[in-house]
Amino acid sequence: MNVTVARALIVRIWRVTGGLAALAIAVATLATIARADPLPSWRDGAVKSAIVDFVARVTMVGHADFVPRAERIATFDNDGTLWGEQPTSVQGYFLIDRVKELAANNASMRDRHPFKALIEGDHKTLHELGPRGIAELFFTTHAGMTVEAFDEAARKWMRDAKHPDSGRRFTAMAYLPQLELLEFLRANGFKTYIVSGSGVEFMRTFSEEVYGIPREQVIGSSLKLRFVVRDDRAVLVKSDEAEGVEDREAKPQHIGQFIGRRPIIAFGNSDGDLEMLRYTMSGDRPRLALLLHHDDADREVAYDRDFKLSPLSKALDHAGAYGITLVSMRRDWGRVFQPSD
Amino acid sequence: MNVTVARALIVRIWRVTGGLAALAIAVATLATIARADPLPSWRDGAVKSAIVDFVARVTMVGHADFVPRAERIATFDNDGTLWGEQPTSVQGYFLIDRVKELAANNASMRDRHPFKALIEGDHKTLHELGPRGIAELFFTTHAGMTVEAFDEAARKWMRDAKHPDSGRRFTAMAYLPQLELLEFLRANGFKTYIVSGSGVEFMRTFSEEVYGIPREQVIGSSLKLRFVVRDDRAVLVKSDEAEGVEDREAKPQHIGQFIGRRPIIAFGNSDGDLEMLRYTMSGDRPRLALLLHHDDADREVAYDRDFKLSPLSKALDHAGAYGITLVSMRRDWGRVFQPSD
Repeated sequence: MNVTVARALIVRIWRVTGGLAALAIAVATLATIARADPLPSWRDGAVKSAIVDFVARVTMVGHADFVPRAERIATFDNDGTLWGEQPTSVQGYFLIDRVKELAANNASMRDRHPFKALIEGDHKTLHELGPRGIAELFFTTHAGMTVEAFDEAARKWMRDAKHPDSGRRFTAMAYLPQLELLEFLRANGFKTYIVSGSGVEFMRTFSEEVYGIPREQVIGSSLKLRFVVRDDRAVLVKSDEAEGVEDREAKPQHIGQFIGRRPIIAFGNSDGDLEMLRYTMSGDRPRLALLLHHDDADREVAYDRDFKLSPLSKALDHAGAYGITLVSMRRDWGRVFQPSD
Repeated sequence: MNVTVARALIVRIWRVTGGLAALAIAVATLATIARADPLPSWRDGAVKSAIVDFVARVTMVGHADFVPRAERIATFDNDGTLWGEQPTSVQGYFLIDRVKELAANNASMRDRHPFKALIEGDHKTLHELGPRGIAELFFTTHAGMTVEAFDEAARKWMRDAKHPDSGRRFTAMAYLPQLELLEFLRANGFKTYIVSGSGVEFMRTFSEEVYGIPREQVIGSSLKLRFVVRDDRAVLVKSDEAEGVEDREAKPQHIGQFIGRRPIIAFGNSDGDLEMLRYTMSGDRPRLALLLHHDDADREVAYDRDFKLSPLSKALDHAGAYGITLVSMRRDWGRVFQPSD
């Protein structure tokens, strides 16, 4: 029941009973609304209580743990934390489709690694090519375009593309409990950020629509942007020089550079997030760091130490010592995904 | 007259006259309030009209020039645009005082350039030492500290330090017309940013208090931050490696990287701002770029082409061709500074 409906109901009862009954019902109804569960897809338990209690404490004026609104910064990893990364990241699928699109009109590209290996799904060769091969794939498919042209290409792809396993659009595959958490935090004066290894311009094409996170609150890996004047018009072109990969130490470093405040909430799911979580837990203010463990083969995928793309191993070993709260997908999430369309 | 006072007055007249007179007065009063000048320190004229009309157009739902709130980005240079930079920047004064403080307990530093030259005001030697000497001054006074320790040191300095010419605290020397403009833009849904060559951590110590601009909306020159664990606590330490100097092409590049949106308003005062202004004027949306000309020797300082630290020359020559609006301090500002304490 929302407030408007409750109010209409109370007014009607007031008229019928002459007032007193309405008053009693009004008090009970408003108390229920105040208690309404802000995280319905999270199962009751220690983790959910820790989150809700933390937010209650830092937002309560006069409480010893009160944190001013401007300092309520929450940072989230993206792949594996806000949505899936199995069997590969969403940007990985984008990359494959972009290569196929470019290769369709370019025979020499089809015959040359790393493009050939990618098109043919030859994982062994891809693996042997190593970081250099991956970098070439990124540069070829992402560089040389203006940020506006890239934005348009990525948006177009995202509109039509579907996950090969689920058959659903990627944008419908964000984790429902996390969408609720983001919204709950913002309703309590938090500024929510993405700090992720995916490309920053790629994530900005969907962060607002999917997560309600504006473009300027997305920090990610990036190619250096080049200022170029074309036809008397100044544009920014994605170069083939990496600005940096958003992983491990780079996460807190860029939080310092971009935001200039230490987060009081951080959420990750892999070893690449450990430094961000630890940086958060080293603050002077009340703080909460969460680590999602994908342990739910029935509803999603169960993986941790052996997932090469983004292992969860060291972080799992150190979570306790660093005061990081472990979130079990199986135990703590009542639902994982939004209902299908 | 503000709305509360007006309302009280109307209620009183209503009681005395029985209503009709109050109604007439109410309409006239509210119309006056609606027309209240949002930029009282700006003189009426073409520039002020251009600003007010622009904001009216981009905020009016249904207008052809309407711009959604999320895209209303305004970027401001700091030194020479929001406050003075003569005879040197505020951070320059901070640097001098820091060197003197460090040298007080370090005799070998007092006898060695560039410190010796700085302490003795030996500008000729300083100039000869060039960028290397300046860099050493910055590294020695800014590097090796955690961002928190630097923040504290800069805040402490800012509380006590005074401009040698005016004798006023630096934070009281922001330009009044610009404070009004920042506030006017925010009241109309703009997000205001600083994009400046000064150090980002330095500016973040006063951006909120002086300009109402939160730390995360400050982009500036920076030293690379290093993630370090000290006494089991994760901190960010300012290294002695420059991340980049925020000038010329770097301004639009970092606007792209940090904000990910093209500004629709940009304001600068020197050649170092030209690329940012041009990038703004190359957008598809309605747009306004402003260039402050310090041409007021009576109330501030008159300078442009010959000021080596931050010349205004190329930008002055190209403003017309690029559609940049020239702001004359002498002609367009009715007042320059806030009244003295």
